Amino acid sequence: MTETSTIDSARRTGELLPRLSRIVGTGHVLTGGDLTRSYESDWTGRWSGRCLAVVRPANTAEVAAVVAECGDHRVALVPQGGNTGLVGGSTPDGSGSQIVLSLTRLNGIGAVERESGQIPVGAGVSLTALQQAARAAGYDAGLDLGARDTATVGGLAACDAGGLKAVRYGTARARIVGVEAVLADGSTVSRMAGLLKDNAGYNLPALLIGSEGTLAVITEVLWKLVPRLDARATALIAIDSVQQAAQIAGPLMASLPSLEVLELMTETGIRVTLDYLDQAPPMAVTPAWVLVQCAARTDPQDELIEALDGIGVAGQAIVAVDAAGTERLMRIREGHPEAVNHGGVSTKLDVGVPLRALGRFLEALPTVVERAAPGARLVAYGHLGDGNVHVNVLGPDPDDTTVDESVLELVAGCGGTISAEHGVGRHKAAYLALIRSAADRAAMRAVKHALDPDEILNPGTVLA
Amino acid sequence: MTETSTIDSARRTGELLPRLSRIVGTGHVLTGGDLTRSYESDWTGRWSGRCLAVVRPANTAEVAAVVAECGDHRVALVPQGGNTGLVGGSTPDGSGSQIVLSLTRLNGIGAVERESGQIPVGAGVSLTALQQAARAAGYDAGLDLGARDTATVGGLAACDAGGLKAVRYGTARARIVGVEAVLADGSTVSRMAGLLKDNAGYNLPALLIGSEGTLAVITEVLWKLVPRLDARATALIAIDSVQQAAQIAGPLMASLPSLEVLELMTETGIRVTLDYLDQAPPMAVTPAWVLVQCAARTDPQDELIEALDGIGVAGQAIVAVDAAGTERLMRIREGHPEAVNHGGVSTKLDVGVPLRALGRFLEALPTVVERAAPGARLVAYGHLGDGNVHVNVLGPDPDDTTVDESVLELVAGCGGTISAEHGVGRHKAAYLALIRSAADRAAMRAVKHALDPDEILNPGTVLA
Repeated sequence: MTETSTIDSARRTGELLPRLSRIVGTGHVLTGGDLTRSYESDWTGRWSGRCLAVVRPANTAEVAAVVAECGDHRVALVPQGGNTGLVGGSTPDGSGSQIVLSLTRLNGIGAVERESGQIPVGAGVSLTALQQAARAAGYDAGLDLGARDTATVGGLAACDAGGLKAVRYGTARARIVGVEAVLADGSTVSRMAGLLKDNAGYNLPALLIGSEGTLAVITEVLWKLVPRLDARATALIAIDSVQQAAQIAGPLMASLPSLEVLELMTETGIRVTLDYLDQAPPMAVTPAWVLVQCAARTDPQDELIEALDGIGVAGQAIVAVDAAGTERLMRIREGHPEAVNHGGVSTKLDVGVPLRALGRFLEALPTVVERAAPGARLVAYGHLGDGNVHVNVLGPDPDDTTVDESVLELVAGCGGTISAEHGVGRHKAAYLALIRSAADRAAMRAVKHALDPDEILNPGTVLA
Repeated sequence: MTETSTIDSARRTGELLPRLSRIVGTGHVLTGGDLTRSYESDWTGRWSGRCLAVVRPANTAEVAAVVAECGDHRVALVPQGGNTGLVGGSTPDGSGSQIVLSLTRLNGIGAVERESGQIPVGAGVSLTALQQAARAAGYDAGLDLGARDTATVGGLAACDAGGLKAVRYGTARARIVGVEAVLADGSTVSRMAGLLKDNAGYNLPALLIGSEGTLAVITEVLWKLVPRLDARATALIAIDSVQQAAQIAGPLMASLPSLEVLELMTETGIRVTLDYLDQAPPMAVTPAWVLVQCAARTDPQDELIEALDGIGVAGQAIVAVDAAGTERLMRIREGHPEAVNHGGVSTKLDVGVPLRALGRFLEALPTVVERAAPGARLVAYGHLGDGNVHVNVLGPDPDDTTVDESVLELVAGCGGTISAEHGVGRHKAAYLALIRSAADRAAMRAVKHALDPDEILNPGTVLA
């Protein structure tokens, strides 16, 4: 860059913030470490950067104007919802030149349409708020995850979030029947008719879901609710080995139509979490615990017990008898991320393998981690029914990529994915080649270049 | 083009067919009207063209080689499955310079994986063959449509087909969990792991599904089966007006979890079809008939009758008492396309409107058609639960676009789509602007240009 163009660029950047203030109001352009800090780091402390400013538009039109203005100034934007991501996809890099585009003010919730069970929700609406609106209208959101109070609908869409109930209702992609989004040139695409069948041209919403803010800024979605099921039955099963845990997933899913949650915990994680929660183990700690929850209109407890009996694990299971007992069992699984975080900044991987390879993967994992980081503490847990394992390794410097490489190579060898539900972010962009062919990556890059030629939207995320 | 380059081009095109023969074998490059005719016209006779040759590769590698070779020669390809499309998306234009890429030889069916209920199927497998394989393994394909014997899985994927059971299981998009496809540059993308959660980069399969062979040639898909339900109950309801028919859709879907089929027929179509089938009406012919079918593990007849009673239409309904009776009722709905076709080449539109606007649309439709084509015969029927109406108009020259324009404008005014499940094809490319904004169309065009810069794949389809 010549000296003149550097000066031009600085002068132009200096003009940017006043322009953005005119769009969103001065109070919604935040600068200075005190105001911006919470937007610049993720909650685990693993991802931390510095931004030029945080900009907080109130609606789609303001988002569009902000994106257009930043595009004119060639200043990159990092879209951010609840900032609960774990892969560096919602925090700025260290340059101090990026804008964090916070979408939490887009928090409008429409009414549920009775004919279709669909509800329009702003990108900034928290999952908890969506769940509450759904339940109040006699429905359920059909998606749940631990970060529900903070995670936003826009983030769920951008990462194609999965969570606890995907085994029954699919991921965010299955729930989202309409999207409104701002493209990199500041134009707005709206597909909010909520039609079950609509194949008039390319399905842009399907492309934008899971693109982690790199192709467009999702500002609103139309969410397809599921019937509210108020009767629940919950069991915790003690299993002698991770391989056996993997083996019961298929039969349980096949024999339990009311299955809504099917989770895996392993020994180290169970102990670490019970310690952190200061809770006594509800049963003997074994190499693996499997948590099963069914949901139906009428009490599914008999069905659950029958299914456990059918696959020969009823004798190793405890069944919650009331809401408090259910909450205690669920809390152990849900306490895992906090318990791990309490132990320090860890290497975090969110991988998925086909069920047929899950036993093999889980068996090999400790050896692979020990070889990569001798003496490190491995905490693996996750969504058993989805073959989705959260791998946490405490000990090595999180910037040391030895563990990441070893585990992701194991995943690739099992025919799995380097990201099941957290996204690629900046963290795993370099590993995409492990599971996506050169042709596949070239196609992704071509799509990115077509929709964001100037790399305005979340550069460095997904594609390195 | 200069004279020299025309000669060059002709010489190069002359080299193409021998090269394609070396890839697929001489017997699978068809030229000359007798051999190519059935590939050059659709079954309704509405869409008819002329091709340079029909090429019939046997597998993905041959498809890739054919696409690469055609790309080198700048010769466009029209991918074709069962050629049951209705919008000119699978037949060549009149230039005689395009290659029809027939995929019917890619007809391999893999085994059902028990853990996941997934089955790999080649693009050329017919829907009937998929359904049979599914049923033999204790599953159901979860998708059905009248052209099942001829329509191929590749075509279902390319058009995001809907059909009869979408009201319960969603469209092809919901069933397809993996795609293998050849891109315009001859490279192959494969996402066939069948993971429930996999957000590692852009979801290219989601983009390719419904792109009508304009972004890639789908060669194989991984299909997610649904449980086989052998107990069925079927009813036909006589309704006094199309508006009332539209009004019962929501309550029926809400009160009947076992609902699998919810179809609409209207008076002219009912009479034309009964005539064509030489069948006596099973009950009084009214302005609208609604066909309902439930499927469950145990006999859903009581549930069906209770639901009909609950919405106050039990008195107007007949219920099939055996398989032959069911077949007779279904045959009336399924006979509609043939009956219409028997009446001549018609203007065919496949539109969708939100359920909230369906009554208004159906009420206005006859007036709009009569104004556009006085004296024409309107036959409207379709998938009530999806708000998906097939509009057939007999009388005007199918090349006269007055009816198309009028009906599609009505659809747009109702917040609907100009294509619900048939696709845009060449037929409706010019009408995309009625329902997709300039920004939306620009994004589609950018994606097309990114993945197929030389317009090798199905030019003129989707984007005019």
